[in-house]
Amino acid sequence: MIKLLKSVFSRGKNDNIGGDLGSDLHLKELESLRQENEMLRKINRSFFTILKHDLRSPLQALLFSLNHLKNQLVQESVDDSKLEIVSVVSSTIKQIQTYSLDFVTFHSLLQQEYPIQKANYSFLELLNEVKDYTSQVFNNHSFTIQSSVPESVTIYTEKNIFVSVFRNLLVNTILYGLGRIAIDFRKTDSKSILVLSNEILPDTIIMVEEIEAKIRETNPELNSNDKFKLGLSSISFMARSIGMELSFELRHSTFIISLTL
Amino acid sequence: MIKLLKSVFSRGKNDNIGGDLGSDLHLKELESLRQENEMLRKINRSFFTILKHDLRSPLQALLFSLNHLKNQLVQESVDDSKLEIVSVVSSTIKQIQTYSLDFVTFHSLLQQEYPIQKANYSFLELLNEVKDYTSQVFNNHSFTIQSSVPESVTIYTEKNIFVSVFRNLLVNTILYGLGRIAIDFRKTDSKSILVLSNEILPDTIIMVEEIEAKIRETNPELNSNDKFKLGLSSISFMARSIGMELSFELRHSTFIISLTL
Repeated sequence: MIKLLKSVFSRGKNDNIGGDLGSDLHLKELESLRQENEMLRKINRSFFTILKHDLRSPLQALLFSLNHLKNQLVQESVDDSKLEIVSVVSSTIKQIQTYSLDFVTFHSLLQQEYPIQKANYSFLELLNEVKDYTSQVFNNHSFTIQSSVPESVTIYTEKNIFVSVFRNLLVNTILYGLGRIAIDFRKTDSKSILVLSNEILPDTIIMVEEIEAKIRETNPELNSNDKFKLGLSSISFMARSIGMELSFELRHSTFIISLTL
Repeated sequence: MIKLLKSVFSRGKNDNIGGDLGSDLHLKELESLRQENEMLRKINRSFFTILKHDLRSPLQALLFSLNHLKNQLVQESVDDSKLEIVSVVSSTIKQIQTYSLDFVTFHSLLQQEYPIQKANYSFLELLNEVKDYTSQVFNNHSFTIQSSVPESVTIYTEKNIFVSVFRNLLVNTILYGLGRIAIDFRKTDSKSILVLSNEILPDTIIMVEEIEAKIRETNPELNSNDKFKLGLSSISFMARSIGMELSFELRHSTFIISLTL
């Protein structure tokens, strides 16, 4: 197999096959590309596995231990600096876990290998999952999330992707606003719209057109960064893949994100 | 681009192109496979980036904070249980960092995309790098590493891969022996051999033939596991890729790994 791989991978990536070459050559090239693609898929699956599974349980074990340490420190009412370190470490690990899963989901969708399974979910249940995350991760930021969505609202969606899109929008909102976030729900004849409103500093400049252009990008790049969140073009791509549309609006000092379901 | 991707990825993986189809069809298929190939490589690079760079600096920052916390705890001479938790968390993070890099190196080699650059290195310098890692990661295991390799020995090798192979062999040795490890160096006319000897429990059964078969596997799988180390078939593949050969021997209650350079 290694020999085969060697011949496959050492082939120049830009070898040009002219239209006038014989059919045999094409067949040879086809076979070689197929093998190469199979190998690349295999490597990709291997990456999926490490991010999705191999890192998961050890990181989960660390969170458990850190929580134990935190409880001990709280009981001893020691100075806050130690507790602060433990919180930051836990929060970063939580973010790495979540970001790794988002990363895998995004790439599975890009390869059309994600098994989309929709069902009805209570919106409040989904919101609580997202709020759990933000409160764990941003426990030193001050922010409030006020939802005026009625308890009875259900959403027919792909749960993991919806949660991922909603969580990433909320994280962006928390990071770039004053921390007063309102969540609202509107229903028209044909569609449901979730609205995230976020107060920003009055003199903040937000280029809505640029943002709108970014989310319309048809070739989303996962602009990964050390803040462990997806960029808008990736979030928007994930939303579209389950039939949701994002839009943005700046009304005085309130930045509004609408998620049409 | 998304539309293009959709058509590329939704194509059945086993579509069969018979030899009697026209050249135009082959060209179309070739084009489609090339696009798929390009996208898979792009995804692949994106995985490399997250494992090699994006996770690296935040994890490094955590190690720094944890070290600070550890020093505070040591000064206060508190009970050992807190220090133990901090050590385990640091050690796991260190292992995740190292394993992520090994993972990327292994797959880059598999794709023949790793730029192998050999130079002369002092063996003791390489050994110290590996010992630093094992002492950080196994600080609650008792083990000794005795090297009788003369200070003057230099090795002409690819540094990162050599260190990765040697470190993974040492980790396997520490995990599966009594913790008394001897490192020796032999030179014949044509080759140099590094020898790792490891005392095992007298009644431990080690199937040398099975191990030998494993390292001869020409289709190495990265048998990742929660112990964050490479398996023997991956280690052996990495060694071969820079011209080193592994062999194993069981002599009474000593397990001997030879690395021929």
